[in-house]
Amino acid sequence: MQKSFSVYDSDGSKFAPLVVIELVSETKEEAIAWLLNRVRDKQQDGGAELLVEQLTPGAQGTEKDNPNVYVVGASWQRLLCGAEDVGLFKEFNDGSMRGFTYANKHNFKEFQGDGDGFLSMAECQYIIKHELDNLRAKDEAHVPGYPKMKLYPGKSVIRRMQSKGILVQVFPLHEKEELKRLSFSWFKKIKLSFQPLDDIRHYFGEGMALYFGFLEYFTLALIPMALIGIPYYLFDWEDYDKFTVFAGFNLVWCTVILELWKRLSASLAYGWGTLSRKKAFEEPRPGFHGVLGVNPVTGRAEPLYSNAKRQLRIYLVSVPFVLLCLYLSLYVMMIYFDMEGWALMIHDEEPTFWTGLLLFIPSIIYAVVIEIMNLIYRYAAEFLTGWENHRLESTFQNHLVLKVLVFNFFNCFASLFYIAFVMQDMVLLRQSLATLLITSQILNQIMEAFLPYWLQRRRNKKAHKRMIKTMGDQELPLSEQVKLEADMSTYLGTFDDYLELFLLFGYVSLFSCVYPLAAVLVVLNNVTEVYSDAFKMCKVFKRPFSEPAANIGVWQLAFEAMSVIAVVTNCALIGMSPQVKSYFPESETQLILWVVGFEHFLLASKFILTFVIPDVPKHIQIKLSRLEFESLEALKKRKMLEASGIPKNDK
Amino acid sequence: MQKSFSVYDSDGSKFAPLVVIELVSETKEEAIAWLLNRVRDKQQDGGAELLVEQLTPGAQGTEKDNPNVYVVGASWQRLLCGAEDVGLFKEFNDGSMRGFTYANKHNFKEFQGDGDGFLSMAECQYIIKHELDNLRAKDEAHVPGYPKMKLYPGKSVIRRMQSKGILVQVFPLHEKEELKRLSFSWFKKIKLSFQPLDDIRHYFGEGMALYFGFLEYFTLALIPMALIGIPYYLFDWEDYDKFTVFAGFNLVWCTVILELWKRLSASLAYGWGTLSRKKAFEEPRPGFHGVLGVNPVTGRAEPLYSNAKRQLRIYLVSVPFVLLCLYLSLYVMMIYFDMEGWALMIHDEEPTFWTGLLLFIPSIIYAVVIEIMNLIYRYAAEFLTGWENHRLESTFQNHLVLKVLVFNFFNCFASLFYIAFVMQDMVLLRQSLATLLITSQILNQIMEAFLPYWLQRRRNKKAHKRMIKTMGDQELPLSEQVKLEADMSTYLGTFDDYLELFLLFGYVSLFSCVYPLAAVLVVLNNVTEVYSDAFKMCKVFKRPFSEPAANIGVWQLAFEAMSVIAVVTNCALIGMSPQVKSYFPESETQLILWVVGFEHFLLASKFILTFVIPDVPKHIQIKLSRLEFESLEALKKRKMLEASGIPKNDK
Repeated sequence: MQKSFSVYDSDGSKFAPLVVIELVSETKEEAIAWLLNRVRDKQQDGGAELLVEQLTPGAQGTEKDNPNVYVVGASWQRLLCGAEDVGLFKEFNDGSMRGFTYANKHNFKEFQGDGDGFLSMAECQYIIKHELDNLRAKDEAHVPGYPKMKLYPGKSVIRRMQSKGILVQVFPLHEKEELKRLSFSWFKKIKLSFQPLDDIRHYFGEGMALYFGFLEYFTLALIPMALIGIPYYLFDWEDYDKFTVFAGFNLVWCTVILELWKRLSASLAYGWGTLSRKKAFEEPRPGFHGVLGVNPVTGRAEPLYSNAKRQLRIYLVSVPFVLLCLYLSLYVMMIYFDMEGWALMIHDEEPTFWTGLLLFIPSIIYAVVIEIMNLIYRYAAEFLTGWENHRLESTFQNHLVLKVLVFNFFNCFASLFYIAFVMQDMVLLRQSLATLLITSQILNQIMEAFLPYWLQRRRNKKAHKRMIKTMGDQELPLSEQVKLEADMSTYLGTFDDYLELFLLFGYVSLFSCVYPLAAVLVVLNNVTEVYSDAFKMCKVFKRPFSEPAANIGVWQLAFEAMSVIAVVTNCALIGMSPQVKSYFPESETQLILWVVGFEHFLLASKFILTFVIPDVPKHIQIKLSRLEFESLEALKKRKMLEASGIPKNDK
Repeated sequence: MQKSFSVYDSDGSKFAPLVVIELVSETKEEAIAWLLNRVRDKQQDGGAELLVEQLTPGAQGTEKDNPNVYVVGASWQRLLCGAEDVGLFKEFNDGSMRGFTYANKHNFKEFQGDGDGFLSMAECQYIIKHELDNLRAKDEAHVPGYPKMKLYPGKSVIRRMQSKGILVQVFPLHEKEELKRLSFSWFKKIKLSFQPLDDIRHYFGEGMALYFGFLEYFTLALIPMALIGIPYYLFDWEDYDKFTVFAGFNLVWCTVILELWKRLSASLAYGWGTLSRKKAFEEPRPGFHGVLGVNPVTGRAEPLYSNAKRQLRIYLVSVPFVLLCLYLSLYVMMIYFDMEGWALMIHDEEPTFWTGLLLFIPSIIYAVVIEIMNLIYRYAAEFLTGWENHRLESTFQNHLVLKVLVFNFFNCFASLFYIAFVMQDMVLLRQSLATLLITSQILNQIMEAFLPYWLQRRRNKKAHKRMIKTMGDQELPLSEQVKLEADMSTYLGTFDDYLELFLLFGYVSLFSCVYPLAAVLVVLNNVTEVYSDAFKMCKVFKRPFSEPAANIGVWQLAFEAMSVIAVVTNCALIGMSPQVKSYFPESETQLILWVVGFEHFLLASKFILTFVIPDVPKHIQIKLSRLEFESLEALKKRKMLEASGIPKNDK
């Protein structure tokens, strides 16, 4: 970890600033003093034992600047103890990954001297966030100076101040040098190589690194599809019969890549020490509210919210709302088909080049409308899920993902399903798929790369001007750096990025056999996606707190569900192809029975395959069992020593 | 635990005999002396620290009797430490289930005085078995007196002697008083009540209790089906149309009962302390052999067997063998259909009462042949799986279960599938199903209840004569008791019992809509099954070692797979019913598409349901998380105390 900046704590110890806390400018003095004391207090007194200092505004500080900005750091010892608290896994001397313990610190591979540099800055920031979140009220009834901001023993102080709005934000600082190196190796040079996943993990944490790993894996996995797709496109453009082979390939492909990803992600997570890391006990999410009661698990006084009420909200409000939105989406789809019919009518009356172009207009408009509807629905879903008042962040996320997935799936694919299986019009399906895919990709690239780039340039120019005005060519002082980063947008997590991949996966796996170029388009999109995502992470957003993750979580499930649906649609498309139909000239019933039988066979094989392929590669399984075995042996030895002190006979 | 017998150890301490070890009569003295020493040795010297004594033959001991029979026991302290070693869970003072620790013993609910009676006899026997199995060779190169019986450091002594045939058997003793009480409340009085599951668990352990619990649950779950089935049988015997409703009911039924059983079994397992118990590190199974190498997990010298070789054996021998057996079964099925046709021909020529009876003869013969084939295949599968040389007992069991399940499923149901979907003859299906079900039930009852009962009576008479001859009316002395039990058959585990239930479940869930009386027959069968199984456990077999279990393991999966297949068959049967066909008079294609759509909807709902219904009831989940939370808190507190000794600043 680089120490380009350092500030002094009240007791005079110098520390590297890691995390910034910003309070609203009119916060009362007593509340600030109380908070800082609690952060500085020793752990046995219930404090966080961190170092914290007010940011002294630089020379060019203006009246407008918020004075209540604090930087937080910690001594190395404190961070190492914190690493043990959060259950960090590090590489041991023997090459295996083990839970770090302070007592055992010298047996870890990269531990040298007093431990400086052992933890990455992202890890230090994660530890500080954990300690801040775990700063709990003792016997304060409310935040000093704010009688309405109720506290009770055990309530997280930071979360309460955040949900009541005194605390504007807590965010980790960027490391300029590190970031420069990372961006260079990641996206600044044009090269044919893998992403520096370990560096990404080092800087942004495991959750982010797994996203980029998955993005890269998904792109590579698509390349065979794309390679097969190109000759299909070039030579068989009008021969719909050949797509049977392509559909078969599609089926095998989407089952296999998801299984292999599970293994790959287990390998990555093992190397990063998150695979066998135990989940910490989950605290209520900041927005959760309820009547004070006793939590049956912890025995602590805590707000409780009746599950029955929540279920009522879900089933009486959320579910009808989602259904209404689905209906709306269906309605819009019908308008699209009307427009489509109208355009076709005009084209058929007087076919010119311009009416030929007109044929694409309805699809393009529909694609734009879909994107807009998705965006609006996303906010509604977030509001609604918040209103359902889930106690845990994980349940909140699951309900949100479910809501958004169902709608987006329906919104994006309903028209394609309708065209494919009700209208059975393969030409329209291909045209519609192509337009939807291309339009949504263009829109996404604009939203994700050009817009941020443009914003960034504007901001850079402003900052540049200000900097040059005041200090010429020197490096930015800490206060300026903090101010600059505080103004950057906040990255809201990998949700939207995964969602986009999910929809792309859907386009490829569900229907690409009728439009083999889809895989090619998705590959192209993903390549630019890597660059634009990397750019936005490094340049546009505040640094996010690193989030330890062992897998891509609920998305694995979502992708698997999609691949099951893909089996069904591909089998149906195969059954509808003239090539297959020609094998059963006399009886359509026979054809359907064969296709259904084949589909059942595929589904069964898929489940058996999922079951048979181990989720964790053998060599990692061996390492994990060795660790388990050793801890069992150690326990046994300890017990044996203890037991030897016990009288031997019961006379 | 009752102490009706006691023997004296070599150092004079009196102990209750728990487990019997029988060596072959010509075992060399030095091997015996060595073994006994190792069993008696202190734990820090690598012994088992148990009490063991040779059984002194009673007054009526004859020359023929094997002198090398030893009884093993242990002091209470030793057993309590052992309880900690094996990870026993017991009820804590606060009503939750916790892992027993010797240091904390007085905080457990039923712990009184010095702990006498805290552990049930079954638990003590399980502990002793565990300690005996864990008696490992130190630096002996072979068993003394037997240079060919190689040992290496860490090899389980008992397992080696067992696989080499010096050790005839190790078995736990019955408790006469306890057994009398148990059998009285279990099956001796005719009553309308549940089985005494807690008592069964107390005497036979959790694995057995879960089997009887499942048997009871399955029977109760069948009662609604049976109640609906009776009027169907009485009033609609010839009306095949009505079975659509029944098939629908069937579908819901088999999904719901399996999900509810998971929750019930979690409740039972929690109460018995096996739910959150960690699995011990698994040792190689006794029959496993290989070349001495280093185990990558434990780092110990241990025989290794290459996985590639095992895969070769599986794919080049076992799989072809299973396929051959399936082909044979198909061949037998075809002979059955020939016989069926022949009987029908005779009946059609000159229909009399006798030719009417003749119609059932082929089915009866086929049912008997199926049972015989299943029996023979069972032995072949066991031999083959043993030859595959799996390292762990659990993998061995999985491969065995898979082999047996596939064959039995095919053997029992192939003819029914053929009749239902190829011949589409519902009358023959009903007749065949009824004959198969009734015949196999009668055969099973004979094999399981009458045969053992008869054997038991013969044996009892002999023992009775012998006893009266020598001692009149007194209680049997220990030596006689041991001899009597050593001669009893060995219970081979719950495999065959579960397999029988699995096939019955298949008959009911797959096809019962065409023969609604199936559920009634299965209920009747299960009621007698409870009695005959209880009888055989208490009177016919040696007491088995109790096996801790948290669920019914691989059988849950097997039953769930069956219920998925049931969805498919029931939907197909619905689609084939004239009632449904009449809705689509013009187009068979439409009908099939609707049925397939309905089936996909059902399968999807089934998976979602499995996902949505939590496997563990809420109140138990709360107890489990409380335990987890408390251990996390305790860890944190300990770390805090440790950390307070660490210097605070890094200057």
